[in-house]
Amino acid sequence: VAEDMFVDRLLSAIEKKRSHVVVGLDPDAAALPPTLRVKHGLEQGDADVAAVVGCYREFLSGIMESVEPEVVGVKIQIAYFEALGNSGYRLYEEMTAAAAHLGLVVIADVKRGDIGSTAEAYARAHLDHAGADAVTVNPYFGTDGLEPFFRRVRDAGKGVFVLVKTSNPSSSELQDLRLETGATVYEAVADSVNAWGKAVIGESGYSSVGAVVGGTHPDQGAALRTRMPTVPFLVPGYGAQGAQACDLAALFDSSGTGAVVNSARAILYAYKKTDADWAVAARAEAAQMRSALWAAAGRA
Amino acid sequence: VAEDMFVDRLLSAIEKKRSHVVVGLDPDAAALPPTLRVKHGLEQGDADVAAVVGCYREFLSGIMESVEPEVVGVKIQIAYFEALGNSGYRLYEEMTAAAAHLGLVVIADVKRGDIGSTAEAYARAHLDHAGADAVTVNPYFGTDGLEPFFRRVRDAGKGVFVLVKTSNPSSSELQDLRLETGATVYEAVADSVNAWGKAVIGESGYSSVGAVVGGTHPDQGAALRTRMPTVPFLVPGYGAQGAQACDLAALFDSSGTGAVVNSARAILYAYKKTDADWAVAARAEAAQMRSALWAAAGRA
Repeated sequence: VAEDMFVDRLLSAIEKKRSHVVVGLDPDAAALPPTLRVKHGLEQGDADVAAVVGCYREFLSGIMESVEPEVVGVKIQIAYFEALGNSGYRLYEEMTAAAAHLGLVVIADVKRGDIGSTAEAYARAHLDHAGADAVTVNPYFGTDGLEPFFRRVRDAGKGVFVLVKTSNPSSSELQDLRLETGATVYEAVADSVNAWGKAVIGESGYSSVGAVVGGTHPDQGAALRTRMPTVPFLVPGYGAQGAQACDLAALFDSSGTGAVVNSARAILYAYKKTDADWAVAARAEAAQMRSALWAAAGRA
Repeated sequence: VAEDMFVDRLLSAIEKKRSHVVVGLDPDAAALPPTLRVKHGLEQGDADVAAVVGCYREFLSGIMESVEPEVVGVKIQIAYFEALGNSGYRLYEEMTAAAAHLGLVVIADVKRGDIGSTAEAYARAHLDHAGADAVTVNPYFGTDGLEPFFRRVRDAGKGVFVLVKTSNPSSSELQDLRLETGATVYEAVADSVNAWGKAVIGESGYSSVGAVVGGTHPDQGAALRTRMPTVPFLVPGYGAQGAQACDLAALFDSSGTGAVVNSARAILYAYKKTDADWAVAARAEAAQMRSALWAAAGRA
């Protein structure tokens, strides 16, 4: 096992920054600040992909520099980059490197999942080549489809967050189906995550195999905290999706750690609710979220 | 609903080509023909990504041109392109366009799945921007995470193949769990696929919402054929993963249609078993597979 474990770096960052906040990089051209849109020519009907990429670069770089003191890391949602084609994919790689350069924990939110040989290619793409610290993965294929990611957890100090209970309304359709054992599908996945993480427990007592647990289902989240006592949580659904800090108290452990919470739109587009500059507005929103979560975790 | 339905184009191609074969584009630098490796400088230790991309381009273009008469389409496994970074991603887009230019049905094997807003970005990336005819998707998020793909099925004549039962050994861990209803998880997903497809049945009687059903589980595949009578199957696992034509007979309907079968390594690297040129060897292997499947489907 690598000496430098992902989970220990993640939990150290929480203590150092006094923050559980991860900022989600989900760029949306239509929501970008008007000053930037004008500067990069996006207000004209025929703006090309290169202009959008240039605008995203300036915006996301500015956001990361501004919010860095308030957040432990970034969650880069690759879909919004893929939507721009290969130049968007290149920007994803650039932003991954830029976040790491700022000392942020970089979670590539790629939600990949496939058979073993293909998963090896995905792990190479995102953990080796793009250089993310951790990736999100989908459990549908089972252990052999995740093993290439786990190998990098063991050998290269990388991290994995497995989808357990997602934040969207339809998540119940498959994830909440009840098994003949009495457990739900997502609880069975949680038990697998426990098992997968056993071999990669860090000095913190937590595992480098984490779980995605949506913040929009507080009761289920609380039960999962008990069910997976050594598994770090990546919690989406804060802010624009509806979860509030008070809903998330039970996702932290008794020491007020063990989870990081992602917010994308509420931070990125905070300028819409204020007269402040977009970077200033984003930092203020991140700071406010940091305080609210720190209190919810029982730290303040 | 679009006048030109994906599933009707797919089933017409089966009849026109008298083939159920889809060739998988899963490029692997180490397995490429030695003549190409030498030509592109891959035998030197310090070959860069551009050299690998150039080699893949020549190889995959040659494969597609050579096997085109024997196959209905291509399944492009994006992971192998992502593994090369942004220039690999650009090649994925190039190969998608090249396959369409040859008149092949293009299935982007991306296995994406996420919340609705993110799924919209993925659908834009692969169905709009890259221009694939169909994509593979993961069902873990439920209906709202698939709706952006379904909208393009309805409005733009696109297709979707939902993972139901995958071909890998660990697929049983989650997919075969038994629910309190008596059905397995993958059977419950199959029932959802039936429901999702109801609104997009084409003239062929089949739906443009298809299912991925691994060829490595013949009994389960046969039962799924009965359970999903109007759902076209994309069947991986042929050849290198172990499935043979005789195992797949029950995946076709009584008219010998309703399924396409993917083979990647066995076709791409057929040169290893013969003295023939790699493109010739690939075509011969595809032709052999075409005949074997045509017979298995009860057509010959």
